[in-house]
Amino acid sequence: MTAPHFDVLGIGNAIVDVLARVEEDFLVTENLHKGSMNLIDAERAEYLYSKMGPGIEASGGSAGNTIFGLASLGGKPAYFGKVANDQLGEIFAHDMRSLGAHFNTPPLVGGSPTARCMVLISPDGERTMNTYLGACSELVPDDIDESVVANSDIVYMEGYLWDKENAKNAFRKAARIAHEAGRQVSITLSDSFCVDRFRDEFLELIQSGQVDMIFANEPEVKSLFQTADRATALNALRRDTKLSAVTLGSEGSVAISGNETYHVKACKVNKVVDTTGAGDLYAAGFLFGLSKGMELERCAMLGNFCAAEVIQHIGPRPEVDLRQAAEQAQLL
Amino acid sequence: MTAPHFDVLGIGNAIVDVLARVEEDFLVTENLHKGSMNLIDAERAEYLYSKMGPGIEASGGSAGNTIFGLASLGGKPAYFGKVANDQLGEIFAHDMRSLGAHFNTPPLVGGSPTARCMVLISPDGERTMNTYLGACSELVPDDIDESVVANSDIVYMEGYLWDKENAKNAFRKAARIAHEAGRQVSITLSDSFCVDRFRDEFLELIQSGQVDMIFANEPEVKSLFQTADRATALNALRRDTKLSAVTLGSEGSVAISGNETYHVKACKVNKVVDTTGAGDLYAAGFLFGLSKGMELERCAMLGNFCAAEVIQHIGPRPEVDLRQAAEQAQLL
Repeated sequence: MTAPHFDVLGIGNAIVDVLARVEEDFLVTENLHKGSMNLIDAERAEYLYSKMGPGIEASGGSAGNTIFGLASLGGKPAYFGKVANDQLGEIFAHDMRSLGAHFNTPPLVGGSPTARCMVLISPDGERTMNTYLGACSELVPDDIDESVVANSDIVYMEGYLWDKENAKNAFRKAARIAHEAGRQVSITLSDSFCVDRFRDEFLELIQSGQVDMIFANEPEVKSLFQTADRATALNALRRDTKLSAVTLGSEGSVAISGNETYHVKACKVNKVVDTTGAGDLYAAGFLFGLSKGMELERCAMLGNFCAAEVIQHIGPRPEVDLRQAAEQAQLL
Repeated sequence: MTAPHFDVLGIGNAIVDVLARVEEDFLVTENLHKGSMNLIDAERAEYLYSKMGPGIEASGGSAGNTIFGLASLGGKPAYFGKVANDQLGEIFAHDMRSLGAHFNTPPLVGGSPTARCMVLISPDGERTMNTYLGACSELVPDDIDESVVANSDIVYMEGYLWDKENAKNAFRKAARIAHEAGRQVSITLSDSFCVDRFRDEFLELIQSGQVDMIFANEPEVKSLFQTADRATALNALRRDTKLSAVTLGSEGSVAISGNETYHVKACKVNKVVDTTGAGDLYAAGFLFGLSKGMELERCAMLGNFCAAEVIQHIGPRPEVDLRQAAEQAQLL
């Protein structure tokens, strides 16, 4: 039997989101920088949870959302991430597998619980994240199933992994195996604060060719190259990567590869309800197109389309069958 | 110190919902009667979960939703219900307390897990529920805190409690204490299949005066009095109860007390997304009005308003601050 083939393999922090609306005041009182992702310990998690209002729970995690989106588009993705053998871990695993994504990372037994992220949604739809990594911290190089990596066209990894030494080594191992098998390696920069923490390492990954493709939003790219100028940042990306896709909020997104540049306008959105997952779903659409050999402009259009769906409701993952929706919109 | 006072005390099955969209086919294949609530065991729960798509999790439970709605309206409610000391139990307790509802039932230790209900939402917005009662089965008369009952203006209980002998006895104990303290006792009939199971007992509760007020939808009332005629059913309610409030779907609701009858039209709804919690939130609005001494017509209007909010999004509990929303709609 030959090993199964995957379009995209995602590697990331396997997290269940607890989403709740808050007033702007709450962010100020709790000293939270709007739009950021904050790593918190168990004690702080308990404190914040006791202060926040009622939530809903939904499987999340940046790469997890992307892989879910790929499955919803009809792709054949796989995922590596560490949950615990608890109720939230079962929920995460169920949701990941329910649309056909391959997810087989053994759950952590007898250690920290499954990671959760308290996602605070302010009235403007912006989200501020507070992540207790829990079991995610135990994602280790041994969790990188070599045959899955070697049989995935594109490996996609979260910059967030860089916060833990074990996960960073898992990331490096996956990148090496992928390149040995002639596959592409991509990374999302995750968060401008994450880029601040690991700027030199991210630049080294890109400039050394360990990573072929970058996904990012504008603040992340500006932070990476320490510039306030969009054109400067995008040209630096053009110089350092084979392919980059950058989201520009309500201005849409831009794909850059060599001399090619495709700026694609954002899809019309009636009301931004919750931006959680916007970048993740953009990556899902873009990667799906890429794995199917579509032109870059169409990849970006599909990315914009998927991002637009997810920001119009609470929760980090699509509520609709993305394949059906994209077909109706004549994007597939 | 005098014991605190509560507007409404809810007693019910403390459940976390797992909500997922399904196609009509799924209900047929799995032999599920659309719109019903099915009690399932752990094995069936595991099977159904493995078959269903990705979900979101939200605290639920019929009376739990009502009490949450009362808190959102600015009321001062309390709740008795049994969760386990596990992750889903913590979520349920957090959500219940987060808006100020009193919830102090000791969680079950070392037994079944917290109850969950797989809520399958079909394309028309109708929900079909599959409930694994888990820890709920261990709600016992000792969990009925007498001082809370005696200090609550209205006690509100789920017909669903009738499925377990312990819970039924807890219900009877609460009703007795409430009446001894000069309080009102209300019950929701919960589900027409539930009425089928316990028709004689429900009629006895009502006709013996152990219950003063009935909340129900039309199929439940018709089932209770075994008639296909709405007017016959409503007149039987008029004869047997001091007060009844009956929801009529898109036709709104009707409140009946002695010679008084108030038919209040439904609020305008753009799209029915998920009917989960509609009856529960109707009861929340109605009970809030009642506890504040409003006229029955206004109680029914407030009930309709709260029900309309909850059916326009996925999940069994309001997403907005109901007090603020009701004030804007000039209902408060």
